[in-house]
Amino acid sequence: MLSKNQIKLINKLKLKKHRVESNLFVAEGIKTIKELLQSDLKLQHLYTTESFNIESTLETLISEADLKRISFLTTPNQALAVFEIPKAKAIDLSQLCVALDDVRDPGNLGTIIRLCDWFGIRDLICNKGTVDCFNPKVVQATMGSITRVNISYLDLEYFLKEAEVPIFGAFMDGENVYTHTLPNSGILVMGNEANGISTPIEALITEKIAIPRFGDLKATESLNVATATSILLSEFKRRTIET
Amino acid sequence: MLSKNQIKLINKLKLKKHRVESNLFVAEGIKTIKELLQSDLKLQHLYTTESFNIESTLETLISEADLKRISFLTTPNQALAVFEIPKAKAIDLSQLCVALDDVRDPGNLGTIIRLCDWFGIRDLICNKGTVDCFNPKVVQATMGSITRVNISYLDLEYFLKEAEVPIFGAFMDGENVYTHTLPNSGILVMGNEANGISTPIEALITEKIAIPRFGDLKATESLNVATATSILLSEFKRRTIET
Repeated sequence: MLSKNQIKLINKLKLKKHRVESNLFVAEGIKTIKELLQSDLKLQHLYTTESFNIESTLETLISEADLKRISFLTTPNQALAVFEIPKAKAIDLSQLCVALDDVRDPGNLGTIIRLCDWFGIRDLICNKGTVDCFNPKVVQATMGSITRVNISYLDLEYFLKEAEVPIFGAFMDGENVYTHTLPNSGILVMGNEANGISTPIEALITEKIAIPRFGDLKATESLNVATATSILLSEFKRRTIET
Repeated sequence: MLSKNQIKLINKLKLKKHRVESNLFVAEGIKTIKELLQSDLKLQHLYTTESFNIESTLETLISEADLKRISFLTTPNQALAVFEIPKAKAIDLSQLCVALDDVRDPGNLGTIIRLCDWFGIRDLICNKGTVDCFNPKVVQATMGSITRVNISYLDLEYFLKEAEVPIFGAFMDGENVYTHTLPNSGILVMGNEANGISTPIEALITEKIAIPRFGDLKATESLNVATATSILLSEFKRRTIET
């Protein structure tokens, strides 16, 4: 049975403000929850229509109807879990890191977290304007990758000023990334969906790169931030094989 | 003023069945509509809150409230246009083509169409199970690229059997795409979001390739189909610069 207080708490977790206050976030779907249970994340409570056979004080069996009442999804999938938000670990600048400057779309952030996981990027650094990675839509889109990437929210301008590594950013007039020298470490900055990298951050980019367009002059002027990230990470990482 | 019949027609165009019957599709948003007006597409009618200064018989000025009644978007953007569905041109197999086997998500198809445009892929070949490219969500996601890519829906198995070019497909156990020889022409097949390439189509793949995973063994098992397409197209096209 679900208590009124439980329903209220879960609904509140849709909002970042309440996630920050309570230090909790919601994950949904059996596959995602199972991945999260296998990680270092601390489970606060699991609401499920079929038992996961975990410690009984942590699990409440609920009806399909109750799951519908608490789920953020249009088609809920057997279970909803509340986890504690983990503390971000110290950033390791000896490896290639990705930094986001005002990425706003939850689907894009989710895809980028999954890409970081795939390409072995340990650290994802987000400016404060980037969508919260514990937003339920982001958690959903990462499909478990959120447990394997260290995500830090910080003052990006200040951080980049202090970082003593090459800072890469994609610009239309940048150097062809396919022929540019790419190191094994550094920070790759990706910008906002509509406006790209902001002016104060652009001033801190040490190497402007570009993904060449092969279509004719009428072709689309830009790539989606998640697809551009995938092409650039692929390009950085393939060099580590070649050398 | 909007007539009841106009409202009815536009609402019907949400469904593929009615798009096929009427040979019409809907595009929304000023930017997308302006791109479409500059292409070879034939406008059937434009509904807008501010005149585009086009032939007056083709344009109806409507109120914000009326636009809300016909729009498929939660936040309509000044205009909605109805265009005729163009006839697909003959496929040119002398260049690299992309083929889709049951890609179901409109956002993914939209992103892939935009990627084809960026990378100068003239032909996108879709099996009949792939989401319709004139679905309003796809049109929206392509941001105008739909006018610059020739999209054909056909019996993919039959088409691939007859095609006398190398057929590439991404598989976990494929050859490392970064070191594999890639030609300037051929067909790159991308599969369904959940199940990948289907068994009958897999039998027709002549070259199995893989995007290497750089994360550790626990890392995510797969990439989203649109991000995988972006990495593979980047890889095919970068070779044309090197040689």
